[in-house]
Amino acid sequence: MTLDNLTSQNGEWLSGSGPQQDIVISSRVRLARNVASYPFMSKANRLQRTELHRLVRENLLQAPSTGAGRTVFYVDMEKTDEIDRQLLVERHLISKQHAAGEGARGVAISNDEALAVMVNEEDHLRMQILRSGLQLREAWQEADKLDDLLQQHLDFAFSQRFGFLTACPTNVGTGLRVSVMLHLPALKLTGDIEKVFRAAKDMHLAVRGLYGEGTEAIGDFYQVSNQTTLGRSEEEILAEFNDVIIPRIIQAELAARQILENERPLALDDRIGRAIGVLKYARLLSSEETLYFLSHLRLGVVMKRVTGLDLPTINSLFLQTQPAHLQRLLGKQLEGDARKSARAEFVRNKVGKNNL
Amino acid sequence: MTLDNLTSQNGEWLSGSGPQQDIVISSRVRLARNVASYPFMSKANRLQRTELHRLVRENLLQAPSTGAGRTVFYVDMEKTDEIDRQLLVERHLISKQHAAGEGARGVAISNDEALAVMVNEEDHLRMQILRSGLQLREAWQEADKLDDLLQQHLDFAFSQRFGFLTACPTNVGTGLRVSVMLHLPALKLTGDIEKVFRAAKDMHLAVRGLYGEGTEAIGDFYQVSNQTTLGRSEEEILAEFNDVIIPRIIQAELAARQILENERPLALDDRIGRAIGVLKYARLLSSEETLYFLSHLRLGVVMKRVTGLDLPTINSLFLQTQPAHLQRLLGKQLEGDARKSARAEFVRNKVGKNNL
Repeated sequence: MTLDNLTSQNGEWLSGSGPQQDIVISSRVRLARNVASYPFMSKANRLQRTELHRLVRENLLQAPSTGAGRTVFYVDMEKTDEIDRQLLVERHLISKQHAAGEGARGVAISNDEALAVMVNEEDHLRMQILRSGLQLREAWQEADKLDDLLQQHLDFAFSQRFGFLTACPTNVGTGLRVSVMLHLPALKLTGDIEKVFRAAKDMHLAVRGLYGEGTEAIGDFYQVSNQTTLGRSEEEILAEFNDVIIPRIIQAELAARQILENERPLALDDRIGRAIGVLKYARLLSSEETLYFLSHLRLGVVMKRVTGLDLPTINSLFLQTQPAHLQRLLGKQLEGDARKSARAEFVRNKVGKNNL
Repeated sequence: MTLDNLTSQNGEWLSGSGPQQDIVISSRVRLARNVASYPFMSKANRLQRTELHRLVRENLLQAPSTGAGRTVFYVDMEKTDEIDRQLLVERHLISKQHAAGEGARGVAISNDEALAVMVNEEDHLRMQILRSGLQLREAWQEADKLDDLLQQHLDFAFSQRFGFLTACPTNVGTGLRVSVMLHLPALKLTGDIEKVFRAAKDMHLAVRGLYGEGTEAIGDFYQVSNQTTLGRSEEEILAEFNDVIIPRIIQAELAARQILENERPLALDDRIGRAIGVLKYARLLSSEETLYFLSHLRLGVVMKRVTGLDLPTINSLFLQTQPAHLQRLLGKQLEGDARKSARAEFVRNKVGKNNL
């Protein structure tokens, strides 16, 4: 498995197969861990960093350590060019910070992209399980299992009093962050999205854009995650998030879709129609704008107001129209209008073929 | 001839047959006249107004008085409902003021819509000759002839010192206003339209929107007219306007189109493409928005970047999608979203049929 193969596949999390796919794109569980015998990244010198990278990498590539029968391949960030690093960000396999970072660092990725472990990001290890739809418990079980397997080989920094020690205090304790990527176009259209944000804030949740911290909510995608991890068990965090918070947001989006359908069907179909019109006829498309219009098209598909297009196709369009993916797929570097023009052509070929 | 017939025809001025049709939609010459034995409208009582209306109407309906072999029919404003009055405004046969006015008043219209004489608007008579493309001299000759014919029956208020007397001092003298309706989408897209406006202002011209005084420039249509009429002969006014000013604006628009074609072909085709996309796929269209997108489509047609659609069809779409026309054509009163939805359907049927 290489990066080339990645580009042309939908990772498991984009397969459109998980529960609540109409609203929940993906579920993610992340564990932050540090190797006890090495200083935190901010204190590690170049040699320590390089040693650490080699040590963790070796352990990650040992088949038993990743478990669950997954085959894992490793991407060394120092040997990866900018477009491919960006590609991994677009696929949610590494963070923007990891792509932009320096020094010995990398990521282990399973072939189905459900598992990714960043090495030498903010912490020594950032393990991620990413699943399609609402599958937080399944993701947590896999992450927990991976953690156990790795602990047989690596000694993680742990305090009896605080739990797992991490570079940033917000992660101390379980080192756990759970998040879901939600598609909330109806709440955006009805204007009720602000209420959801306020409620989320009151519950100490973070609401972020498509690519995590510091990114904007484009294409009506929102990444909702827990904020505090200290003083609570993994089970508590997960139960509240999976069984209370996310179902509530899903309910709100479903209610908003119902309102649009019952009270504003013309306005709804107009939004969807215009999205189709622009995607089929534009000659220049920025990636943000493409997300915006694809979002309305996706709403049309899941609400069955548009036929002839399935969810996996739309899901992959979201990804394939992003800058690094587009350039990888077309096999050339493109900037400015040339890229926008190529994107419009790409979208036209995909959307235009269907009799929408 | 009745208003019903009007709705389904393109007046001569919309036939797309006149010179410089790519840019100049129509040329208009208007003469303001008052009958000497009656007070100006602001001073006339109800009885005088009614008498005057009957007198002028009778003379207008006498075949020889309108001349040029044109058949004329008369529309009594007091017997015309709001939608039909609006219809006449949309066809540029009466002013908004005349439609909204009160009391005895009307308009004589020739079957081909090239001639229209409002009775009891701001002045007793407002004669208009409206021709397709740049035909100001032809329009002037016809207006002059009409004026002569009417003077054989009606005694117009005239002063040796000032010339023809009118209700508003800006019209005193010749009572002449010449104007052209220009379609300047390229100047708008390049941003150079502001320069043209400043130049026009320096030359004491008025630049107005689609429906004259106090209306906004929508759909990139601009009505350019002379401002002063006192102290200059009709020939002087006409020569400057027809031979100097308008050709200069036409040149500027042509230059802007060249710039778009040579330097920004992608952006140009993107504009045109998006217009087609929205016109074909929107489910709700306001009249303003329709003008906006039709304007870009028209640019595409005249620049031959869109095939399969001719100028008369587009010209009539501009008119038929206006509120009164749309309701007349569909045979029912429509408000709000119902009207926008009907408009979108109407446009879709017209534009969608063509393989654009």
